[in-house]
Amino acid sequence: MTTPKALSRREVLQTAGLLGISAAVISSSALAAEAGNLSFAKDSGLVTGKMKPLKYESIPGLLTKEQVTPHYQAHYGGALKRFTTIEQQLDGLYQGKDPLGGDALAFIHKDKVNRMNSVLLHELYFDGLTPKPGDANDDIRAALSKRFGSIDRWSEDFKVCCMAANGWGMLVRDVVNGRLYNVSSDLHEIGVVWLGQPLVVCDVYEHAFYVDYTNRKQEYVTKFAQFLDWNEINSRFRSLAS
Amino acid sequence: MTTPKALSRREVLQTAGLLGISAAVISSSALAAEAGNLSFAKDSGLVTGKMKPLKYESIPGLLTKEQVTPHYQAHYGGALKRFTTIEQQLDGLYQGKDPLGGDALAFIHKDKVNRMNSVLLHELYFDGLTPKPGDANDDIRAALSKRFGSIDRWSEDFKVCCMAANGWGMLVRDVVNGRLYNVSSDLHEIGVVWLGQPLVVCDVYEHAFYVDYTNRKQEYVTKFAQFLDWNEINSRFRSLAS
Amino acid sequence: MTTPKALSRREVLQTAGLLGISAAVISSSALAAEAGNLSFAKDSGLVTGKMKPLKYESIPGLLTKEQVTPHYQAHYGGALKRFTTIEQQLDGLYQGKDPLGGDALAFIHKDKVNRMNSVLLHELYFDGLTPKPGDANDDIRAALSKRFGSIDRWSEDFKVCCMAANGWGMLVRDVVNGRLYNVSSDLHEIGVVWLGQPLVVCDVYEHAFYVDYTNRKQEYVTKFAQFLDWNEINSRFRSLAS
Amino acid sequence: MTTPKALSRREVLQTAGLLGISAAVISSSALAAEAGNLSFAKDSGLVTGKMKPLKYESIPGLLTKEQVTPHYQAHYGGALKRFTTIEQQLDGLYQGKDPLGGDALAFIHKDKVNRMNSVLLHELYFDGLTPKPGDANDDIRAALSKRFGSIDRWSEDFKVCCMAANGWGMLVRDVVNGRLYNVSSDLHEIGVVWLGQPLVVCDVYEHAFYVDYTNRKQEYVTKFAQFLDWNEINSRFRSLAS
Repeated sequence: MTTPKALSRREVLQTAGLLGISAAVISSSALAAEAGNLSFAKDSGLVTGKMKPLKYESIPGLLTKEQVTPHYQAHYGGALKRFTTIEQQLDGLYQGKDPLGGDALAFIHKDKVNRMNSVLLHELYFDGLTPKPGDANDDIRAALSKRFGSIDRWSEDFKVCCMAANGWGMLVRDVVNGRLYNVSSDLHEIGVVWLGQPLVVCDVYEHAFYVDYTNRKQEYVTKFAQFLDWNEINSRFRSLAS
Repeated sequence: MTTPKALSRREVLQTAGLLGISAAVISSSALAAEAGNLSFAKDSGLVTGKMKPLKYESIPGLLTKEQVTPHYQAHYGGALKRFTTIEQQLDGLYQGKDPLGGDALAFIHKDKVNRMNSVLLHELYFDGLTPKPGDANDDIRAALSKRFGSIDRWSEDFKVCCMAANGWGMLVRDVVNGRLYNVSSDLHEIGVVWLGQPLVVCDVYEHAFYVDYTNRKQEYVTKFAQFLDWNEINSRFRSLAS
Repeated sequence: MTTPKALSRREVLQTAGLLGISAAVISSSALAAEAGNLSFAKDSGLVTGKMKPLKYESIPGLLTKEQVTPHYQAHYGGALKRFTTIEQQLDGLYQGKDPLGGDALAFIHKDKVNRMNSVLLHELYFDGLTPKPGDANDDIRAALSKRFGSIDRWSEDFKVCCMAANGWGMLVRDVVNGRLYNVSSDLHEIGVVWLGQPLVVCDVYEHAFYVDYTNRKQEYVTKFAQFLDWNEINSRFRSLAS
Repeated sequence: MTTPKALSRREVLQTAGLLGISAAVISSSALAAEAGNLSFAKDSGLVTGKMKPLKYESIPGLLTKEQVTPHYQAHYGGALKRFTTIEQQLDGLYQGKDPLGGDALAFIHKDKVNRMNSVLLHELYFDGLTPKPGDANDDIRAALSKRFGSIDRWSEDFKVCCMAANGWGMLVRDVVNGRLYNVSSDLHEIGVVWLGQPLVVCDVYEHAFYVDYTNRKQEYVTKFAQFLDWNEINSRFRSLAS
């Protein structure tokens, strides 16, 4: 069964009000989730400043440990380290320790977007794969079929986006209109959708596949679509959908 | 008082379950908001395919009607028109009328992100201004003070981002970690944050200010911060916050 | 008649050698041009650090003085001022006054490319227009006809590139293979050709036309092609062509 | 001794005119170089449509054959293949076989810049390395010392640019002002200098080093600077310098 998303304190109190129930009777367990109601967000390095642990050190048939380890440690870890450094620099600036402005600040403001995206997308990439994949199910299956005609047709278009991208191929849900889009992104900070929620995230930076596939990107992208953790993707889909 | 955000049907039912109440007793009024629980989203052209009406045809002291009219009609309207054309092209492709692939599809996949962002950001820009501005209030005031030290300090950093940008200067809430960031974006599709929610949106494409200010961008940006509709911005801030 | 490009000292001596003539008999007038053999380069702000004077303060029928003045003063002048500041910063760094590295240097390294391109392209834009245009002639006419079928067909494709661009539409000669290309550039530093020589340069940043045309970009672009100084463009074409 | 660059027919005739010699007496051998006077250009795939042969299948101590082969075959070869396809498409369009315009043309116009740059830079990268490196010499040595203080100081700054880049780190000579710049480029079409001549070209796309170095980019970049073919770089430097 899918797990319902956690509700925020405000949401519970608000609904209780609509239902004519005083806050006093609401159990504390329902109020636990103050920090964020997105299943994939709570352990994110963007929240904790620490690396989110890998679910799998390899995905047999798709990615070896030799491929995954430097990817996770150096690329994900490196982006997170730089992000936390920038957060500290911004905290220092905003607390008045330095004047605001100058070339260094201009650089930090642009670089932070690159790093934030890199951290989040790497987490969604690693967590979206499983060595024991099933089929697309529940809400996400219905949504993909409705938008793309069929899962196969979605997959075909998704591969087009991956092959055209230098950075990331993605299935994205636009939070504003609720529609699904396949997206090609050439760099962490390029080709991004404001209020777009990445659901399926394929890292096509060459560091993601070059150990196992060298330049055989098409083979990597094709196999990638066969090892998706559809329970995870379905959970993402439900977490921000109304 | 601020209005609580609408809840989705699922959320109400879920909370009702936590509270031990059957769905049957929940009033239908509480279930109205199926389509999306973001206040700024429901009339968006990304949802309706139609131009969201202007709240104000001018903002005396900031923008004349001569500045606003072509901006709204040609730039916002043009992006929306192109977006709806692309949606139709994608619908046709996904319904199997054409094979997927080729140079035209590659272009559409990249262009759609540019247009989607342009539509949303223009709506947030126009709707975020008021001829009768008040002060930052409630949650957003507290959040800005906490992150930036003070509203003034936020404003100073925000202007740095606007001056450094060729497209958009923004205050953004990262939906994943809940933190606030000022952001510089050089083109609709560049410098964007995945799952970033734009709260304050300043269009610094030259079409936004050249009629009224020609090259005096600094003056435009400074005045812009004085005509913000903080009720609207606060409402945005609350709509996706936990 | 077209003026032959100046030869460098080395070229004259080299040819003299091929011809069996000693350097001693070569007149000093042939040796004047040490500094650079590109007609458009010798007064460039990239060389002198000073603004290249405008040939025309307006182009009646295309651009008013109200349009040209802030464009020249603020946009061209601003880019040049920033470029000269960066040059001074780099000189300081390279002379060992500061350690190399850090966020500020990272920013300067990227920003300088933006500014260098802005300076050069603005000079080529202003100098490429004339209030008394003739027809394309000589070498450039032949080259355009050969590549694009006809001048009209080139012009049609050129307008496509201008309309698709957010920054610059250009006719470019690739110095490596000698072929002509129409190019769309979205920002000063994007969509650029290594060893590409811009011949016809249309500024489509909105500051270039918004005073005179507001959003009527198509009208601006169409008229632009009617006020080209083909003698100047032909001179550019010959200056780097073998 | 360094080889003087070939002169074009026009240059020889022009100089002959200055020297008072009729064209009739100029030997035909001096007129051979019609196609282009840049040493690195004459065999470029941009000219011939064919892959420029590798000088070395590996650079012992820097790059193995396992690293070089897919890089050369798939990445350089792939860019060249796509470039030649685009050239054919453009030829077809310009000869009137198809109307000009549409999404496919918009894509081709942007994609061609990416591919042209990729072809040229890969050629300069491979040709700029040698298994038996010497020291920087002649003109380039003097120019580097003048600009950067010393070769070491240039090298230090060059590595900064390589580490900051996602695509290419380069030493570039601006053809307009003759000055040297280190440049960081994130994608083939980004961070490029109009009329910039790449002299030292380091491919930092991950495909360039991931087989031999995985994520140890710093080690790769440091070693790269030790295997430069300074004769080749000096020849490039002289070929467009006055």
